[in-house]
Amino acid sequence: MSLVLYDLAAPGGRRFSPNCWRTTMALAHKRLEWESRPTLFTEIAGIAGGGQRTVPVLEDDGTVVGDSWKIAEHLETRYADRPSLFGGETGKRLAWFVQQWAITELHAPIFRMIVTDIHDRLAPADQPYFRASREKRLGGRTLEAVQAEREAALPTFRAALAPLRLALASQAFLGGAAPTYADYVVLGPFQWARAMSPFRLLAEEDAVATWLGRCLDLYNGLARRVPAFY
Amino acid sequence: MSLVLYDLAAPGGRRFSPNCWRTTMALAHKRLEWESRPTLFTEIAGIAGGGQRTVPVLEDDGTVVGDSWKIAEHLETRYADRPSLFGGETGKRLAWFVQQWAITELHAPIFRMIVTDIHDRLAPADQPYFRASREKRLGGRTLEAVQAEREAALPTFRAALAPLRLALASQAFLGGAAPTYADYVVLGPFQWARAMSPFRLLAEEDAVATWLGRCLDLYNGLARRVPAFY
Repeated sequence: MSLVLYDLAAPGGRRFSPNCWRTTMALAHKRLEWESRPTLFTEIAGIAGGGQRTVPVLEDDGTVVGDSWKIAEHLETRYADRPSLFGGETGKRLAWFVQQWAITELHAPIFRMIVTDIHDRLAPADQPYFRASREKRLGGRTLEAVQAEREAALPTFRAALAPLRLALASQAFLGGAAPTYADYVVLGPFQWARAMSPFRLLAEEDAVATWLGRCLDLYNGLARRVPAFY
Repeated sequence: MSLVLYDLAAPGGRRFSPNCWRTTMALAHKRLEWESRPTLFTEIAGIAGGGQRTVPVLEDDGTVVGDSWKIAEHLETRYADRPSLFGGETGKRLAWFVQQWAITELHAPIFRMIVTDIHDRLAPADQPYFRASREKRLGGRTLEAVQAEREAALPTFRAALAPLRLALASQAFLGGAAPTYADYVVLGPFQWARAMSPFRLLAEEDAVATWLGRCLDLYNGLARRVPAFY
């Protein structure tokens, strides 16, 4: 068995992609061993035989799988005897909903709050691509102008975490007493922020911060013991 | 086996409680037969032997269960051989998250958009209680003043449905190919609105409206063939 994960990287060992973190945690959840291969944005086209446009990409004994959701499905099927990521079909479909919620309420606002910090920590080779593609996505505004609004954006971001906060008031993880893939999907964007920006997204006393701490402790501190700002 | 559901009611056979709709759909999902007993707000204290403050309340062969979530757990355990509401523990915990999402993004804004319409359709005996308790909840503003803002509130409400819309782009129900309890939790507040207000919450072409139509068709049109505005 040979597993290789192509994982977005920045200098100093920073692993910041929220989508790659989903896969990293899923591999650990399955108690698999894998090689994590640091990859720049500008290297993606050349990995795993070519043809990839995003990471994560997983090579599993010669099978190449791109897209974090497809990778999770692949791992769940191929390693069905290992701990389940989804807990069955309903759990999988509801994890899909959680992923859409995370993309809407976490990825999108967090991106705007840390976008200059991300840029400044990227490898020089990645910076022009990142600035051009992200400023286009931001409707032509500069990264700096958008990030400058983050203090004003923070209360709205925190308020939108209400469903997460309410759910975690009575259970340790979104998946219940133990974490499942839905937890990793929500963890991803918080790892993105920790890896690349000193800006604090959560108040210390927030139940979401307590849950985040639990996630960072998983698998011998896999997500905690990486270069991060806090 | 004798099942009685105490269900919030208004004149003309209107059944409008979003939380009672969760239970109604759960009973149908389990292919159970039950007696639905129309209940006014001002009658709740006297039902099922007393001591209840909210509906739904379920009487199951002498066992009284209040709170829609506890009722769903009761049904799942007691009728374990019937179709599952949750699809296992992970599915149950993620349905709990979906419920918190629905309370935050559906119940709260829909309440404000239809609150006068609800009041005006209640039994006269319920109207003073409803106005007093809800105007208190609204910080002392009148029901009419809050509802008057609904056209302005509608775009924000619809935008907040993005996670639901994205999830339903690739699956018929939140639960996948078939509905589960998470679908009923999201259906509830839309039924509330349909039963009590002519105000259209969804654009016809919205994927959420398509999903809603599928939910209304379930169980021989159980949720469709009730007094409603559309």
